[in-house]
Parts: sequence; C-alpha cells; structure tokens
Amino acid sequence: MSPDIRSVNNRITKLFGTDYPIVQAGMIWCSGWKLASAVSNAGGLGIIGAGSMYPEILEEHIRKCKQATGKPFGINVPLIYPEVEKLFDIIVANEVKIVFTSAGNPARWTPFLKQHGITVTHVIANVKSAQKCEESGVDAVVAEGFEAGGHNGKEETTTMVLVPLIRQATTLPLIAAGGIATGRSMLSAMVLGADGVQIGSRFAASAESSAHPLFKKKIIESHDGDTFLTLKKIVPVRLLRNKFFEEVRKLEDSGATADDLKLLLGRARAKMGMFEGNVEEGELEIGQVSALINDIKAAGEIVREIMEGYKQTIQEFIKS
Amino acid sequence: MSPDIRSVNNRITKLFGTDYPIVQAGMIWCSGWKLASAVSNAGGLGIIGAGSMYPEILEEHIRKCKQATGKPFGINVPLIYPEVEKLFDIIVANEVKIVFTSAGNPARWTPFLKQHGITVTHVIANVKSAQKCEESGVDAVVAEGFEAGGHNGKEETTTMVLVPLIRQATTLPLIAAGGIATGRSMLSAMVLGADGVQIGSRFAASAESSAHPLFKKKIIESHDGDTFLTLKKIVPVRLLRNKFFEEVRKLEDSGATADDLKLLLGRARAKMGMFEGNVEEGELEIGQVSALINDIKAAGEIVREIMEGYKQTIQEFIKS
Repeated sequence: MSPDIRSVNNRITKLFGTDYPIVQAGMIWCSGWKLASAVSNAGGLGIIGAGSMYPEILEEHIRKCKQATGKPFGINVPLIYPEVEKLFDIIVANEVKIVFTSAGNPARWTPFLKQHGITVTHVIANVKSAQKCEESGVDAVVAEGFEAGGHNGKEETTTMVLVPLIRQATTLPLIAAGGIATGRSMLSAMVLGADGVQIGSRFAASAESSAHPLFKKKIIESHDGDTFLTLKKIVPVRLLRNKFFEEVRKLEDSGATADDLKLLLGRARAKMGMFEGNVEEGELEIGQVSALINDIKAAGEIVREIMEGYKQTIQEFIKS
Repeated sequence: MSPDIRSVNNRITKLFGTDYPIVQAGMIWCSGWKLASAVSNAGGLGIIGAGSMYPEILEEHIRKCKQATGKPFGINVPLIYPEVEKLFDIIVANEVKIVFTSAGNPARWTPFLKQHGITVTHVIANVKSAQKCEESGVDAVVAEGFEAGGHNGKEETTTMVLVPLIRQATTLPLIAAGGIATGRSMLSAMVLGADGVQIGSRFAASAESSAHPLFKKKIIESHDGDTFLTLKKIVPVRLLRNKFFEEVRKLEDSGATADDLKLLLGRARAKMGMFEGNVEEGELEIGQVSALINDIKAAGEIVREIMEGYKQTIQEFIKS
C-alpha cells in the first residue's frame, strides 16, 4: 500500500479557495482574462496582470473573467502604476476579492484593500520586506527569486536561498516564485518551506496567454544563458536576449547612467516586444526557466501536469 | 508504521565510497586537510582545495589528511592553476583517487587522470559543458548555480533552473551546488534531479575550516543582499560586500575595463581577506547562503545535522 502524502490543501488553497496551491503570475501583456480564467477553471489561482492595462481595460477583463469562470481569481497591481487608485476603485467596485501587489510599499494600500474585504498578497525579494508585510497586515507573501522574469529585487537572492530566509522571517503564508515551471520544481520550492508557488514563464507560453505568438516562439526556443537581469541602474528587470538587450548591455558596460538608459529604453518597449511581437527592438520579460520550456500548451493542461509531476516526485522519495 | 524513504545510498555514494551524498566544496584558503578529513570521517566526501596551495603544500595536506582519516577524500584542482601538471603529478604520486576539476576544459586532463585510476568530477555552470564532460569521460558533474560563492559561470543560471537543465542534458551522476546549507535545501536539490550535493559556505564557517576567524565572523553576520557576483569582465566571482567590493562596484559602474579591474584587484587579494583576515581590503569569496548561516560548528556536526534535516523533511511530506 502506498503511503499518504501531504495534502496540497493547505493555508494557500484555504486563503484563495482553490484546489491547488498554484498561482499564475500576473504578467504584463501576457495575462488577461483568458489566461486567468483558464488557470482558475483548472483549480489554480488565475491572475489578471493590471500593470499593462488602462483602468477601463482592466474593468473589461474583470467582467469577461467573471463570465468565463465561477472560480476565484485575482488582480496583480504594481504599486508604481501611475494612477493606482483608479485600478483599486475598479477592483473594489467590481468586487474582486483577491489582489496581489508588487513593486512598492505594502503599507500604503493594504489597509484600504483589507477594509473592502480583499485578501492581499504582496511580492517581496528580501527579508526586510517580509517584516514590512507583517506590519502592514497583508495576508500572504510571494518570495520572488533572482531567476524570475520581469522586475526583480536589487539583492539578487535566488529562490533556493530566499524561500528559507523568508520562511524564517515570517509566519505568513509563503508563495515561492522564480525558476518554477514543473511539478518537480514546485515540490522543490515546497520542500524549502513554501506553502505554494507562483508560476509566470510557463503560463506566458500557454495557448491562453496574450503574449504575441513571436514572443511565445522566442520563449520556447530559448536556452540557458539567454536571459539576464539588466537595467539595474533604473529598476532591475530580467530580459530575454535580443537586439534591444545587446544595446542595453553595451551601454551598461561602458558606464551609462540611469538617464542614458532611460533614453534608450524610451516608452512602450515592453508592449512593442511582448504584445506587438517586435522581438528584436522590444523588451521581452521572461524568467530563466524559459530554458526548460519547449512547447506551448493549454493553461489547464499545464496545471494538471504540474500537479501530476508534484505527486509523482513525492512518490520517488518513498520506497514502499 | 512509517514508510521507507528513498535510500541515500546512490550513484554518488557508490562512486566515492561515502556514507552520504554530501561533498564538501574544495574552497581556496578554507579547505585544507583538517576540514577535508573531518567531513570524510563524518561520512561525507572531504575535499582539499588545491587552488590556493603551492605543490609542496598540497603534498603536505594529502599526507596529513591520510593520517587523519582512513575514509575517501578528494582534491579540487582549478584548471587555470599556473602549473597544474605539478599538482596532478603529486596527486598521482600520492595515490589520491578522487579529483574535482573546475574552471577549465575537462578534455585536457581527464584522460590522464582516468589512466591513473582516478575518479574525475568536473564543475559546470551550463548545458554545453555537460556534453563536453560526457565526451571527455568524466565520471560525474557538479552543476553550480549562480548563488554559489567564488568563481562562477557567465550564464548566471541559478541552482533551481540549472539542476533540471543538466539532469536533462546528461545521464552522468549529478551533484548540485549553490545555495545549499541544510538538509532541507539538500532535499530540494535532490528533488530537482541531483544525486548529491556540494556544500561550500556552510563548511567555510566550520571549526575545521582554515578561513581566518574574522572572515568566519563576517560569514555568520552576513544578511541577504550582502554577496554579489562581480568582476564579470575578468572572471565572475561572488564576493561578500566590504570596502574592496565597493571599490570594484564603483569602478564597474563607471565603465571600467578588465585591465582597470585587474589593476585594482592586484595580487593575493583572496589570501589577504580569507586567510589573513583583512576583511575590508581583501577578497571574501562566499555564497548567498551565508545569510542562512549563523554559527560556527564542527564539520562532523554539520554533516549529521544536514542528514537529519534531510530525513525529517521527507517525513514532512508523508502523512502516515
């Protein structure tokens, strides 16, 4: 008889009301209502990435997501968003009950969101922020390692080191992010002390992702050493190598200032690359784990494969 | 009744003749015969780090290590060592049967070592090198992630991503390195597909490490964000922040060339910091995981605690 393994019904599934402790990352230009509802319907937590949406576009995505799923879903809001209060007003008005905040201080908006009965998870990359999250009253934290795509912390701490550090620093439910795309890596993160995982790149390369097909193609063709944390003098961001990246690197190597880099960056580079498919001139935000992703699949299939792999890997470590 | 868990007697313990698949990293200025013999006596594989030794000093360490343990131990040889053939002659003459090579092409020396009945493990940081290792006839590989201390790969791939990539790329026995200091992180690496782990920083802060007491003090006092991969224009190396590091960073930020950096680096910076204890002017090579290390312990105690933590963590994932 095979022994029982630890249930995946835990603090994270209870907090969000999901079947599995798998959260799809709210990624700019990749995660609209189609992706979020597909992940939620498969038992994970789908997230609409509001960072690349005008307020009225977010409202449309919320409405469509509610039509596409009866299951819980959330919204990711980067707190550096110019008129962030407009996004929060829409979230409150449309009665979305789960918000992930990132790129900012959780103290500013958490009390407002909590007053409206919203569950708040904040994304962090260092120990100091874990304490700030506790003080601000957030309900859970995402510990995002250096290998994650897009914006990232200045400390460059990897998932393998960050998750145990955050586990020591707080008793809050803990979601690991960065480098996770399979059931095996999900288990690895849970072993380090996480209660759940947040997965971005694997879902960016899903059928329901709103990433441009040419960007998806670049993701599945990428190898190790094809992404780097860059633009550290502005805000560190992990990008896939392309013409734009090489230009940034050349400038950085010659000692460019933040202003020089902002000038090169210009406006709407991420949209150009990730949404419009100009994969050489645009900014392509993706994680290191893209090297392990070799196909485009339905998001629901991805959730099922991850859970299957998770359980199989536990069995590997049990003899009987 | 508790179910049986997967045995730690595996390809790595068989290859090296150890009790546990725990390898102590061969670190310059930290790992002489005292540390290597203590780890081997505790059931792991102790390694003498030859990179910081003159040939005659290595011979002395081998002799003393053999007096201190009857168990297998190995030698780490960075292939960039100026007169590397002298080290290999001493290793052959003294009948050491395990060699770890790093920082170079495994094709050059592996056939020579294999002819002398030596088990060869090569340290790699990318997929391409895994194939080169197979072709060169090495017996096992160490996959070293970005979070590891000291010299590191240009790809910046973290342990969480690198281990599954190398597991896919080769059938060779695979040892994970970078970010591992506890039984929990050891299991996490094994879950990712490793057959064993190589641990550096935790042993650098052991009683038997030859690191200067002031360097050990810096290790146990360090926090997240206190180490960075730097000197990338020469050879990437992970260092603990100190006065020397800040000077390097300032130069790099202003676009310094490799030559500028070599001039600042000068000679014997690592010895100055790690062995002589000038912890502000010297180079302090250590991994990110130093943030999780808070005490100095006997190496044997470290091995026992890691194995205990490893088994306990497996039990956590089994209900019955």
